Amino acid sequence: MNFCSDCGQSVSHIVPPDDNRLRYVCDHCGTIHYQNPKMVVGSIPLWDEGGHAQVLLCRRAIEPRKGYWTLPAGFMENNETTTDAASRETEEEAGARVELQELFTLMNVPHVHQVHLFYRARLLDLDFAAGIESLEVKLFKESEIPWADIAFPTVSHTLKFFFADLAQHKDGKPFGFHSLDLKKSLHTS
Amino acid sequence: MNFCSDCGQSVSHIVPPDDNRLRYVCDHCGTIHYQNPKMVVGSIPLWDEGGHAQVLLCRRAIEPRKGYWTLPAGFMENNETTTDAASRETEEEAGARVELQELFTLMNVPHVHQVHLFYRARLLDLDFAAGIESLEVKLFKESEIPWADIAFPTVSHTLKFFFADLAQHKDGKPFGFHSLDLKKSLHTS
Repeated sequence: MNFCSDCGQSVSHIVPPDDNRLRYVCDHCGTIHYQNPKMVVGSIPLWDEGGHAQVLLCRRAIEPRKGYWTLPAGFMENNETTTDAASRETEEEAGARVELQELFTLMNVPHVHQVHLFYRARLLDLDFAAGIESLEVKLFKESEIPWADIAFPTVSHTLKFFFADLAQHKDGKPFGFHSLDLKKSLHTS
Repeated sequence: MNFCSDCGQSVSHIVPPDDNRLRYVCDHCGTIHYQNPKMVVGSIPLWDEGGHAQVLLCRRAIEPRKGYWTLPAGFMENNETTTDAASRETEEEAGARVELQELFTLMNVPHVHQVHLFYRARLLDLDFAAGIESLEVKLFKESEIPWADIAFPTVSHTLKFFFADLAQHKDGKPFGFHSLDLKKSLHTS
C-alpha cells in the first residue's frame, strides 16, 4: 500500500495511537487502513456408489500451482456466507452441483494471512466439467489420489483426514471436525 | 474506495474481464482491488466452580453498541491463527487468561461482510480486568445474563447454544459445534 484509497495522498507505515501494530495510516486524512486475513472456502465432493468412494478434484489452470490438483475452493466474497462460497466455488471450478454437509476442516495459514475451510459435500450428479480456472476435473478413489501433485498442504491434510474419517464412518463413527495450523516450516505436502 | 492504493490514481467500479462481480479497478495501472469478508474471533470464558457455571462478559466502552455486553472478541489480524486471535482478544478486552478448547460457533453475517467464530475456553484465574475497549468485565450465571443488553446477535446465539449444551454436558453429552447464518431481517437479539 502506497497511497490512501480514500483521499489519494501518501500513507505511512506506523503504529497508530492506542494500537500496538503497524498499520498504513494516511498522512493527509488520517484514515487507518486495516489489513486482515482472507477466507478460502471449498468443498470435498463425494461420489459414493456401491461403497466405492470417490472425491472430485480439479487440476489448476492458473497460478499459483498451475497444473497441480486441488479440491474446489476459492476466496470468499463479500455478501455471501461460507456455504454460499463453498457451493459457488464448486460450481465455478468443477462445474459440479453438490449438497453441502458439515464443516470438516478449519486450517490456519498465518504466513499468507489465510484461513481455509472445507465442507463435506455429496456430489449430486456426474455432469461436472472444468471451469475457466481448471484444466480438468476428475473423480479419484483414495488409492488414486495424486498425493505428490496436490496443489496446497491444506488440501492434502483435508483429504487425509477425510479418507481416515470415511473408513471409520463405515464402522458407524460420525465424521469429525478437524482444525490445524500450518506454519511455514510445515509448508510442504 | 476512491483511489488506487498502489499508484494513487482514480479507480472505477466495474466488472473486470473474466469476472462476474463489481470490483474497484485502477484506471491507470489496472490493479484490481478485491474486498473480502473479515473474521471476528472470540472466546466463551467459563468459570465453573462447584457446578456453578459462570461466563465472562465485557461491557463495551466503544461504538458500535457502546454500553452493551459482549463476549470478548474482535477482528483477526494478519500473521495470527484463529486461536491466537481468540486468546489475544480475551486478554485485551477482558484482561483474562484462558485455556482455549474447541471451536463452538461459526456465524455468518453476510450483510456486514463478517464471519464470527467463538471458541469454548476455561478461565484460568479470577484476576481479570477491563481492557481499554471495555467499561467493566463480570462473571454471569445463566440466570443473570442481561439478554436485552447483549451487543450483537452472534453473541446472544452463542450464549444460548452454550448454556443449552452445558446443561446436556452435565448428562454426559459432548459439546456441539453450531453454525448459523444471520440475515439482516433476523438482526435483532
